Amino acid sequence: MGDNSTSDIIINKSATSHIGAVDFENLSFGNTFTDHMLVCDFRNGAWEKPVIKPYEPFLIDPSAKVFHYGQAIFEGMKAYKDTNDDVWLFRPEENFDRFNKSAERLAMPSVPEEVFIGGMKKLIEIEKEWVKKGLGNSLYIRPFMIAIGSGVIAAPSTQYRFMIILSPARSYYSGEVKVIIAEHYSRAANGGIGAAKAAGNYSAQFYPTKLANEMGYQQIIWTDDATHTKLEEAGTMNVFFRINDTLYTAPVSERILDGVTRKSIIELAARENIKVEVRPVLVSELIEAADNGSLKEIFGAGTAAVINPIVGFSYQDKYHELPKLENSMALELKEKLTNIQYKVAEDTFGWTVKI
Amino acid sequence: MGDNSTSDIIINKSATSHIGAVDFENLSFGNTFTDHMLVCDFRNGAWEKPVIKPYEPFLIDPSAKVFHYGQAIFEGMKAYKDTNDDVWLFRPEENFDRFNKSAERLAMPSVPEEVFIGGMKKLIEIEKEWVKKGLGNSLYIRPFMIAIGSGVIAAPSTQYRFMIILSPARSYYSGEVKVIIAEHYSRAANGGIGAAKAAGNYSAQFYPTKLANEMGYQQIIWTDDATHTKLEEAGTMNVFFRINDTLYTAPVSERILDGVTRKSIIELAARENIKVEVRPVLVSELIEAADNGSLKEIFGAGTAAVINPIVGFSYQDKYHELPKLENSMALELKEKLTNIQYKVAEDTFGWTVKI
Repeated sequence: MGDNSTSDIIINKSATSHIGAVDFENLSFGNTFTDHMLVCDFRNGAWEKPVIKPYEPFLIDPSAKVFHYGQAIFEGMKAYKDTNDDVWLFRPEENFDRFNKSAERLAMPSVPEEVFIGGMKKLIEIEKEWVKKGLGNSLYIRPFMIAIGSGVIAAPSTQYRFMIILSPARSYYSGEVKVIIAEHYSRAANGGIGAAKAAGNYSAQFYPTKLANEMGYQQIIWTDDATHTKLEEAGTMNVFFRINDTLYTAPVSERILDGVTRKSIIELAARENIKVEVRPVLVSELIEAADNGSLKEIFGAGTAAVINPIVGFSYQDKYHELPKLENSMALELKEKLTNIQYKVAEDTFGWTVKI
Repeated sequence: MGDNSTSDIIINKSATSHIGAVDFENLSFGNTFTDHMLVCDFRNGAWEKPVIKPYEPFLIDPSAKVFHYGQAIFEGMKAYKDTNDDVWLFRPEENFDRFNKSAERLAMPSVPEEVFIGGMKKLIEIEKEWVKKGLGNSLYIRPFMIAIGSGVIAAPSTQYRFMIILSPARSYYSGEVKVIIAEHYSRAANGGIGAAKAAGNYSAQFYPTKLANEMGYQQIIWTDDATHTKLEEAGTMNVFFRINDTLYTAPVSERILDGVTRKSIIELAARENIKVEVRPVLVSELIEAADNGSLKEIFGAGTAAVINPIVGFSYQDKYHELPKLENSMALELKEKLTNIQYKVAEDTFGWTVKI
């Protein structure tokens, strides 16, 4: 256990590949999947052997607990190909650890490292052709676990399915992002599951986000649900604020996801002598900084977009435009981080793991 | 539309029935299903024709949004058979309305009344033999909707599946129920989805409930997440407190489900000249009432158990035993309510609907 051994994985290869039919220049995010997937079921108190098999729909009972009680968690990761055709993961242990923390909070079993990381490496090795070279190209990795046990009684399932599916991705560009600061809706409760990558956290955001979209904003900056005075996340990302030359971001908590990109930015900024303060950031501070001109940048941080600059925000019906900067910390940090991920720059942190 | 017309339902009957293999005297809740289910898909912006077909597993894509983003809602209802072999629903319009409120909050499409109620009636008519006579026997009805569109991008699905499955049930008895008042964990956020019957709300409770179970308590009385000073729900039920001869229950809110059993109890109590106060109930009031002897009863109210008496509660590591009463309001109200549901007593409210 724990040695990432893959000898126990059953491999049923697809007779054909549909890679030739994929237009890699025009991929929309998260809609194209590779030829194979990993499936590993938990039954009778134990994980069965993982299987790598052709990507395809599967049969599930209408009373499966995932449909009724939302026992479902996931992770989002990426694999990158360097100029030597080697494929790299970025801090996979962080996602593995967080996945099992999410599992605990949702009363689901832990997934063994040899299934999560060992299985992932084996699957990506088989799908190596799907990882394209060049900055911006990547293979998005989606490990997830769902409750497949049947029965409409609100109690944890005894049967689970862990899966990994892979989706080739282009650089994620969502256009100019304007955000609105949440004054009513929220994404997480104290003592709730906001720190877990639980499926239910995401659908809860769809309706408020739709309302924001209708008002011309792409995302919401979430605030604490009790007082709406603290800035917590932006859409499905962690969020950073640059006031003068210091970056501010909220500490992780029960309400705030411990993002891998977030923590990498904090470490990278320290190396670059950029001051980062991790502390609660108040809406009132943001408004004051916007008014006196010291607010320079806001950006989201997450696996899909890496860093997503925000051009302006609305609060209490007033829109605050951010300055257009020559020297954007967001773009500087994004370049340095992606250079590490693509092995263009030296990885002094030991974050990259070769497959 | 709106006339509960069932002429448009496609019916594919099962060649055989497994009803003969079911031990109706020894049913565990929510694990046995009838021969048929109703399925209705939403695609290209419209609901397709509902189909009643044999109950069976179905195929679904691994990237279906229900697995990744938790777009899933449900209702819980019951059908009862009277001594004339007629089958009755209880306030189905309430569940229909709430279902579509849940749908809106989760950015899912509304289900038409002729599918939800019309389809339900048709399905139960076909499964009439599965509804057994006698107090305590019922057919549990589970309408639910899941996002079946594929793609691992956190945005609402464009494809949905509405289903109704049916499970024969015996009287729900969970033994002596002791509860613990939540001091850290919570089930809902201000501005969150606590008022919706969203799948994600339930899995969030599993871990705290497991911790409570390990301490010898069957359920948790949830408090508001910001201050943990207000008593809100008990497990997956609404909760009532009897202090002297008055019943107290919290008003419905963004954090508290608008329970059909809850509102029926309030109306029934009014008819019986039992005083009910709907207002926030504080933990401190409960402790004071327990200490001075004025706290007589606590009970949960929900479809599965109807009314579930609680024998005692723990708060800050101190256990408070409730008195054993000759004249329990919980049992009186339960009897009066179930007598209406089973058509033993006259339904002066017009709550029951014949199939």
